[in-house]
Amino acid sequence: MEIGIIGAGSLGLLFASYLSRVFKVTLYTRTEEQAMEIEKNGIILKKNTNRAQALVCALPLSKWEGTEDLIIITVKSYHLEEIIKNINRLSITPKNLLFLQNGMGHLKHLETLTGTQIFVGSVEHGAYRENAFTVSHNGEGVTNVAVFRGDTYVLTALIEAGPSEFPILMNDDFYKMLVNKLIVNSVINPLTAILGVKNGELIKNEYYFKNVVHLFNEISILLNIENPDFHLKKIIDICHKTAENRSSMLKDIEANRKTEVEAILGFLSEKANEEFKKVPLIESFYLLLKGKELGKGGLI
Amino acid sequence: MEIGIIGAGSLGLLFASYLSRVFKVTLYTRTEEQAMEIEKNGIILKKNTNRAQALVCALPLSKWEGTEDLIIITVKSYHLEEIIKNINRLSITPKNLLFLQNGMGHLKHLETLTGTQIFVGSVEHGAYRENAFTVSHNGEGVTNVAVFRGDTYVLTALIEAGPSEFPILMNDDFYKMLVNKLIVNSVINPLTAILGVKNGELIKNEYYFKNVVHLFNEISILLNIENPDFHLKKIIDICHKTAENRSSMLKDIEANRKTEVEAILGFLSEKANEEFKKVPLIESFYLLLKGKELGKGGLI
Repeated sequence: MEIGIIGAGSLGLLFASYLSRVFKVTLYTRTEEQAMEIEKNGIILKKNTNRAQALVCALPLSKWEGTEDLIIITVKSYHLEEIIKNINRLSITPKNLLFLQNGMGHLKHLETLTGTQIFVGSVEHGAYRENAFTVSHNGEGVTNVAVFRGDTYVLTALIEAGPSEFPILMNDDFYKMLVNKLIVNSVINPLTAILGVKNGELIKNEYYFKNVVHLFNEISILLNIENPDFHLKKIIDICHKTAENRSSMLKDIEANRKTEVEAILGFLSEKANEEFKKVPLIESFYLLLKGKELGKGGLI
Repeated sequence: MEIGIIGAGSLGLLFASYLSRVFKVTLYTRTEEQAMEIEKNGIILKKNTNRAQALVCALPLSKWEGTEDLIIITVKSYHLEEIIKNINRLSITPKNLLFLQNGMGHLKHLETLTGTQIFVGSVEHGAYRENAFTVSHNGEGVTNVAVFRGDTYVLTALIEAGPSEFPILMNDDFYKMLVNKLIVNSVINPLTAILGVKNGELIKNEYYFKNVVHLFNEISILLNIENPDFHLKKIIDICHKTAENRSSMLKDIEANRKTEVEAILGFLSEKANEEFKKVPLIESFYLLLKGKELGKGGLI
């Protein structure tokens, strides 16, 4: 099976380095420079004290023809519109697309793609891009995948032939799979990013924890979650297990980068608007984060 | 008229230095050391490039007998309970007490004081305590005062005899007077403190400004404000005029000090609870600030 991977950030590099062990992988980069660097150095995968080099074919996205059996799109959700334009400019319709964006803001874009099988995934790995061709795999996890439109054939092939050290799990219900991650992300990410605290602080600090519960309750009602206790417990568990970590949104805010707030709280806020529901906390944290992005983390 | 001033923070030093120009003032300090320093150096009042020395009598609070014609209590609202205990331990009932705390959380304490005339005030000066006996008067303003319980006799005497360069204005309605300041404080202080931004940022940044409006609306409904547009405009004006200033609450958070959140959002949150009203934003910012106090501004 030939696999194309679009986007060479931390996830793109991680997937390319693991999947190239068993599949023929081509990695598509934003810039020509990065493709050249990867062609020259391979991808260096660091895990604990180990280093592995993966030799993969790398090309700038402009050279993508969409012919691979499976295309995995790893770019951030806010770059997805640009990728969709790239898909639409192809002379052929790609056969199978797997989208790995956080949040659920991207689903409305996927509905516009016709004639192709579409899968979505939710990645639970921790990965950090050290430079154009080096990725550190600092949190071992799984990749959950599910069919958004089409059949399971290619996903099953990916799961069965994929390297055992990089597990990919099939989910029956894409919505449930994405919602599960969205709930966690929409509580931990915004609160840690606005407060400037590590994940563990949200459960250690009794006041922050009350805020966790209030925000969670709003999300839970909006999404009609069936078993809220289970989800709240999952948030607490994750804060506990990742107590010393900075959330991705906090890191983005600290580095004056764009955050994934649109795909997470923006999606929830839009959903609430469509359903005429009031979500004052979702709305407020959404605005605070949009403001932080605009103000580059404040003027101090 | 003999005046006792309780508390030698920025406000206590400011009031003592101005009022001692025309009244016999005794300043009561928390520590014996500060009283000795003030006895030795006087109070140095800095304003623009001017320096003035005021020679005032200073004593530790333990020596206060409550005999002055007017006692002005300048401590922060969270130290008020301790002062009330001091009033209750006196062998006499003080004749006239003027309370200058921010917010409205202190009113419930004042109701417990019997047999004394009680006044409240709202200070619009900017003052910064440089050391135990030096205060910088860096924002010229007025002091609004009103009767909480009793007659206006002593307040009128204070206003008429007080130094013209330190204006004190009589207000008919103590509640309205305090609410006006509370509304401003409960929007500007919490938002700037949580976001870590200067006052002007709240109106320059369109997302922060939407949050200003949302929080203001919640407060406005809770307090049954008659003319919300007027109050919102006042908030905008103040953000504009003090654009380069850090709010007192932001400074407190940055310096890991206790904030006045209890007297401001705590008061509003309690009021909402008593009236079975939902105030998610007030509640959330209250919790975020209580958490900041507990976590000393975050663990980063």
